[in-house]
Amino acid sequence: MSIPSTSASVFKRRRDRLHGHLKSPALLAAGEARSRNFRANVYPFRASSHFLYFLGASIPGAALLFVDGRSILFTHAPDPVDALWHGPRPSLESVCAAHELDEVRPLEEIGDAVSALVGPVATLPTQDTASAKWLGSLLGREVDSCSGDSLTGVDAALADGIIDLRSRHDEAAIEQLKHAARVSAEAHIAGMRATRPGGDEYGVMAAMVGVLRSAGLEDAYGPIVTVHGEVLHAHEHTNPTASGDLLLADVGGETSEGWAADITRVWPVSGTFSSSQRAIYDVVLEAELACIEMAQPGVRYRAVHECAKRTIVAGLRELGIFKGEVDGLIERGAAALFFPHGVGHLLGLDVHDMEDLGDRAGYASGRERDARFGDAYLRLDRDLEPGMAVTIEPGFYQVPGILDDAQYTASIGADLDRGVLAKYADVRGIRIEDDVLITETGNEVLTSGVPKKADEIEAVMRS
Amino acid sequence: MSIPSTSASVFKRRRDRLHGHLKSPALLAAGEARSRNFRANVYPFRASSHFLYFLGASIPGAALLFVDGRSILFTHAPDPVDALWHGPRPSLESVCAAHELDEVRPLEEIGDAVSALVGPVATLPTQDTASAKWLGSLLGREVDSCSGDSLTGVDAALADGIIDLRSRHDEAAIEQLKHAARVSAEAHIAGMRATRPGGDEYGVMAAMVGVLRSAGLEDAYGPIVTVHGEVLHAHEHTNPTASGDLLLADVGGETSEGWAADITRVWPVSGTFSSSQRAIYDVVLEAELACIEMAQPGVRYRAVHECAKRTIVAGLRELGIFKGEVDGLIERGAAALFFPHGVGHLLGLDVHDMEDLGDRAGYASGRERDARFGDAYLRLDRDLEPGMAVTIEPGFYQVPGILDDAQYTASIGADLDRGVLAKYADVRGIRIEDDVLITETGNEVLTSGVPKKADEIEAVMRS
Repeated sequence: MSIPSTSASVFKRRRDRLHGHLKSPALLAAGEARSRNFRANVYPFRASSHFLYFLGASIPGAALLFVDGRSILFTHAPDPVDALWHGPRPSLESVCAAHELDEVRPLEEIGDAVSALVGPVATLPTQDTASAKWLGSLLGREVDSCSGDSLTGVDAALADGIIDLRSRHDEAAIEQLKHAARVSAEAHIAGMRATRPGGDEYGVMAAMVGVLRSAGLEDAYGPIVTVHGEVLHAHEHTNPTASGDLLLADVGGETSEGWAADITRVWPVSGTFSSSQRAIYDVVLEAELACIEMAQPGVRYRAVHECAKRTIVAGLRELGIFKGEVDGLIERGAAALFFPHGVGHLLGLDVHDMEDLGDRAGYASGRERDARFGDAYLRLDRDLEPGMAVTIEPGFYQVPGILDDAQYTASIGADLDRGVLAKYADVRGIRIEDDVLITETGNEVLTSGVPKKADEIEAVMRS
Repeated sequence: MSIPSTSASVFKRRRDRLHGHLKSPALLAAGEARSRNFRANVYPFRASSHFLYFLGASIPGAALLFVDGRSILFTHAPDPVDALWHGPRPSLESVCAAHELDEVRPLEEIGDAVSALVGPVATLPTQDTASAKWLGSLLGREVDSCSGDSLTGVDAALADGIIDLRSRHDEAAIEQLKHAARVSAEAHIAGMRATRPGGDEYGVMAAMVGVLRSAGLEDAYGPIVTVHGEVLHAHEHTNPTASGDLLLADVGGETSEGWAADITRVWPVSGTFSSSQRAIYDVVLEAELACIEMAQPGVRYRAVHECAKRTIVAGLRELGIFKGEVDGLIERGAAALFFPHGVGHLLGLDVHDMEDLGDRAGYASGRERDARFGDAYLRLDRDLEPGMAVTIEPGFYQVPGILDDAQYTASIGADLDRGVLAKYADVRGIRIEDDVLITETGNEVLTSGVPKKADEIEAVMRS
């Protein structure tokens, strides 16, 4: 599979579009590599998404300055001694030409350059504390790391300009997202084939991550590969995989330019769903397909979330797990008992795209998070537009901390039939998640390369 | 392969031994998880090695306080809402019992607890800036991140106490090192078998990392898998693997308790060394075997480094690459032209063990780094003792930045026969690296599970 590479002119166009939004100079830091144990032993470096969006290259310690319509990169000049260990590096002039920048300057000059600017300089929260400290000292004010909930003034204006660009993807971004989706889909198929009774989660995860690495993709987020799907954030992989288990894999890669995929599938360790597993699986799948169908331009994403809740509650009522009217059950919070999270989020360079800017990116102006359990975790409430990419990921989980706690269950009371529910004890957690690009005429599922009907999954596992 | 697990009593014994060294209270931070893009999307967390040595568990944000012979862990108390997402967590009481600690207290109490201490409180540099900032605010003084070169007072005393413990491994540590070495050896064999003309570095790396992940091991350092072995710190994996290439793989895993392996092997992409490749390979191998033979209790590690230099220069002289007397060539810096780094380093929880403490760990009191190119990069100059683990890793590299620069080559002049050297153009970089445990009677090679004679490597690649 050939790896798409975004041309320099695309990044220049993105920078030029940002200049159109700016009323002040703006400074975006790439971030610092992080050491493990000792300084020279660094983790792989991945630049901040805001930086990557405008340059496409992860250069530790670098910064992009936008001023008076000009885009200037500050970065380390090549060092002859360093070249002995890392190989020769391009000159600042050739970096400038390769990236179609207006200017590239040695990093040491950034202090003077920033001091010479007139008026306030906008910036954004960084992904690491070291960079926040550095930006803070350059700008003479506090810069936060990893939280953009309280942006004001020029920083808020910069964030809004970037959100405007990044929330609707250009063609090059879409190519990147498609590539990440295709490779991640292959990883899921490899995971299905690597699963067996008597194995363990590590083995399945290694098969999946191996596909990503072979294709040059890093993880877009910490892989979840677990037989305890009811633990929503399960990042351990030490459990054995036993015959009656469902395995939940939420695994996605990111391209070297930083674009993410985010896929969840669930499959039976034995290769065959039990009848109880298949019944619940089909409820979640029905919800997922209905939500994808709904995800069209002009549709409010919250309505998609409501569709997921309704389909799940109705499906569980069909199975006899809930009793009573669907409307009333939903009103009383029934959906969140088994589906306590939102139906999805924006997808782009970040797996939860621009979540570092808080709800400014995910929520349209004037809209706020619902206070109710379950709905409070909805990360996106915008009207969908062509070029947006979102995930659709309804689920069903038997979380003891929810089902055993009267603060969550009291409103449903005996309309939750625990006798019937007990028949589904072998369904601990199911989530089905695809990546969906909103188009002018509807949508395109980017992750269709991985099977999701129960029969199809069983067929892949047999092959 | 069963995964060794260190019992709580071992960690208690280590803590008690540290108390024997301390003349002041000491505080060791685990470190903070690092976010990518946005706060909730964190990289896998691996605690600071000093913390891991005394507790064995990576708990983000936690800290160990050593005071008056008591060991107190400060950590986040379990949160019922958090339990919905991460599953139930043990109570502080059960953490205390499981780890045989004297006390476990909620993290919020650490400020008051530290304020109540009498006299200076020792600490060490942290691996992340956020933790340095946090410790700094707790202790009311500057705490550095990732550099222990300038420790003084109680901090220096704490470092020396820890170095005394960590430089000679106990039985449990040795079991961990052996396990990491065994799994990493398997990864190298898988890498050899995954290598083929027309493939790429990513594919080989994925096969190797897949073996580590399947066994539950993370990377101990950024894997180097490259057909450009002459780039010593090559962390890109994008090159194709062509028939005439040698592939250099410097890959090692670490156990979940944090113990590292560090192995380098070189193999021909085609499965067969060319005669020129084999000739140089055998020189490096001869040096490696001679150095391992020398690595015995009481031997000064610098002498092992000198042995590597001498064997390499003598071998290259045999091939006609150097002319003149070996002694004179070495005196004039000939070794560093092709072998510009040190022959190895301490190995333990860190791949360069305790390098965060600067040369305080690697260099015996009164010994300092040599100023000469090549020798200046020797990371270890202690007399070897039973229980120490070291790497032995001589190499041969044709680095253009060295061989084309008169500042390095002038002293050798015409005694470097470039005509002969040109016959070895298909040898860009070779390093052979094993992990060696010093024992009472000699040493034990922990990484003997991976072949290193050229014939043996070719046999594995055929199988």
